[in-house]
Amino acid sequence: MQLKNNTLLSLLMQWIILGSIVGVVVGSTTTILLESNDFLGDDIRLKHDWLIFLLPFAGLLIGYIYMRFGKVMFNHSQSDTSELNNLVIKAVHGQKQVPKRMGLIVYLGTFLTVLFGGSTGREGAAIQMGGSVAATVNQLFKMNNIDKKVVLMSGISAGFGSAFGAPITGTVFGMETATLGKLKWEAVLPCMTASFVAHFVTTAVWHHHHEIFTIAVVPETSVKIFFIVILLSIIFSLVSVLYCQLRHGIEKISTKLFKQNHMKRAFVGGVIIAILTWLIGSQDYNGRGLQILEQAFTEDVPPFAFLAKLIFTAITLGTGFVGGEAIPLFFIGATLGNTLHAFIDLPLSFFVALGLIAVFSGGTNTPIAAFLLALEMFNGKGLEFFFIACVISYLLSGTHGLWPAQKIYEPKS
Amino acid sequence: MQLKNNTLLSLLMQWIILGSIVGVVVGSTTTILLESNDFLGDDIRLKHDWLIFLLPFAGLLIGYIYMRFGKVMFNHSQSDTSELNNLVIKAVHGQKQVPKRMGLIVYLGTFLTVLFGGSTGREGAAIQMGGSVAATVNQLFKMNNIDKKVVLMSGISAGFGSAFGAPITGTVFGMETATLGKLKWEAVLPCMTASFVAHFVTTAVWHHHHEIFTIAVVPETSVKIFFIVILLSIIFSLVSVLYCQLRHGIEKISTKLFKQNHMKRAFVGGVIIAILTWLIGSQDYNGRGLQILEQAFTEDVPPFAFLAKLIFTAITLGTGFVGGEAIPLFFIGATLGNTLHAFIDLPLSFFVALGLIAVFSGGTNTPIAAFLLALEMFNGKGLEFFFIACVISYLLSGTHGLWPAQKIYEPKS
Repeated sequence: MQLKNNTLLSLLMQWIILGSIVGVVVGSTTTILLESNDFLGDDIRLKHDWLIFLLPFAGLLIGYIYMRFGKVMFNHSQSDTSELNNLVIKAVHGQKQVPKRMGLIVYLGTFLTVLFGGSTGREGAAIQMGGSVAATVNQLFKMNNIDKKVVLMSGISAGFGSAFGAPITGTVFGMETATLGKLKWEAVLPCMTASFVAHFVTTAVWHHHHEIFTIAVVPETSVKIFFIVILLSIIFSLVSVLYCQLRHGIEKISTKLFKQNHMKRAFVGGVIIAILTWLIGSQDYNGRGLQILEQAFTEDVPPFAFLAKLIFTAITLGTGFVGGEAIPLFFIGATLGNTLHAFIDLPLSFFVALGLIAVFSGGTNTPIAAFLLALEMFNGKGLEFFFIACVISYLLSGTHGLWPAQKIYEPKS
Repeated sequence: MQLKNNTLLSLLMQWIILGSIVGVVVGSTTTILLESNDFLGDDIRLKHDWLIFLLPFAGLLIGYIYMRFGKVMFNHSQSDTSELNNLVIKAVHGQKQVPKRMGLIVYLGTFLTVLFGGSTGREGAAIQMGGSVAATVNQLFKMNNIDKKVVLMSGISAGFGSAFGAPITGTVFGMETATLGKLKWEAVLPCMTASFVAHFVTTAVWHHHHEIFTIAVVPETSVKIFFIVILLSIIFSLVSVLYCQLRHGIEKISTKLFKQNHMKRAFVGGVIIAILTWLIGSQDYNGRGLQILEQAFTEDVPPFAFLAKLIFTAITLGTGFVGGEAIPLFFIGATLGNTLHAFIDLPLSFFVALGLIAVFSGGTNTPIAAFLLALEMFNGKGLEFFFIACVISYLLSGTHGLWPAQKIYEPKS
């Protein structure tokens, strides 16, 4: 009994120490990613409109990097963001290894994409880098197979927690991503430690400032409001399915069309984005699109902004550019909420927040993480509504998630 | 494909309708339980001190009811609250049936316990009644075995959601209780519908008012605060283990001692409670003890209040009286937080809320539900702290949960 307690205690200590190591390293690498991304995307790109016309060449370069250095990882298959997320998820299941060089490659790819105006986020990259750092930790400490998985999960947690400034969601995301709806409780301590430490390192040590979105007013609960929330959630869910289908479709067709030549594929993707940008005449839908995303919370945005962003992002990521899908999903949901607001007289920022979260829930198939993210982003406001929106969007989006390698643990009803 | 979509849609509709039926009925029965409980416990008992001396005879009566009418359910085994919760959980696993009469028996038992001053809550009873109502629904609609489980889970959700006024937590509780850490996603729609509808029926239709506890100030996040929260959570967790061990110990010994004679057992339990009450000279630790619980949030309570409540409740429920364990766990945690506040200069109500939630998490082994309850009870305040407290208390409480029939799905690390 005494021995058993000692073992438990040393096990707990082991996970706290490993989680802290992962947290410190991932928190620091995430900060570098976020800060340099802000600098390239906001300070440089927005001041030099013409950079968008170099996007096709950035695509060539990304394709080259992936074909030259990424072969080991991808076995000559598609080499884009969703495949990278799949790789991390497969590694958690023990089917694949996360190569250490992935972190650096993802880093470079995200830089190039954001500097030249591909429509993308960066949080996905942060998560993949988290996985990459965790893989290094695994090698350094010579972990056994089960522990390897747990360390990987804590890397995902740390990446998410620090990139979004949402450590609770990060904890659960790392535990939840690998198998839908089945939380791995033995991983909670390292995941929680890594996520909170990484968040702390990013914000308190390196002083990175996350964007803050605010809901001005939450409507009083009533039967009518619940029906409106349910109806809206159905619409948000369907749009998340539309995005996922379009993106996977483009990915599939373009891979086939260019016979696995990622340089050609990304070049053509870059050309299309550049032409679309030129036609629209603004860079509202390139990069992260934070301006429109922030604007959506307080005033009207173009009614089809959501559709434009949907198409821009599906092309960018479907042709092999690199980054994250969270911010684009936020953008699509928020602007769609803004558009739908025209039809119903309820607080604007509430609609926008609801769309942001519901499209994220449907697109990523992680309803618990989406709900927690809503809590952390909006300070616990309107939690019943977000809960219902997350669940409905998740249920109706069926198995159309962004990441095919997720195991559907229980059939959705 | 069309057909498949139709099937999905009709499945969704089926669960919404069944969930609503369960919600309306359970919401109504819960209201009757809560209102009559308030009346008996607060209006009558508190005005008639001498009722406590009749507690042994109430025990006789409860024992008689259980031995005479409860045999079918309990197979001559122990017949107390935890066994009833086990029964509901076993029913979800398909190992046992929930008999319809259970609802009525639990009802009567809770009435007698609260009127004559046993230390207990009533939320457990609401959950068991929810299970009982769900069993009736199952019979009426002749459900198949898998669907039966889902209906039972939605009954648990509805009971929890309406008894606590916390529909989100109710949803997850119904899904989580049956197998620790493994959420059954196919049940989310009926559980959510039942929980929200039941909450709506209890509050908006029948106008029941839930108690409201408020956290005055949440400390700013800092490394020091996190360490304090972790330290406190360890203490809260150990006290939750102490309670569970004592209660199960009393249950085991008293069952053996009185050779399955529940009348004798509860009579002696009643005598001990009556003597303890007489010695202490107040009824602070009888019934739900709401006065002290509310006081704990704003001013000092006796430093060993938590221990007194712990002993009173372990004896009450360990000798076969009926009710719920949530409010006693709240009481124990809140007053312990109040006591510990003397040592550290942080906002009082924050300590109290933390203890309330952490002891509940450790005692019930449902960390997600405990965290969500904190959100719903305290309007999303201090969510990082509650999250950490729930996880730590859950991890350290090991397998010392209140309800033995819970399947430990994954080994805790």
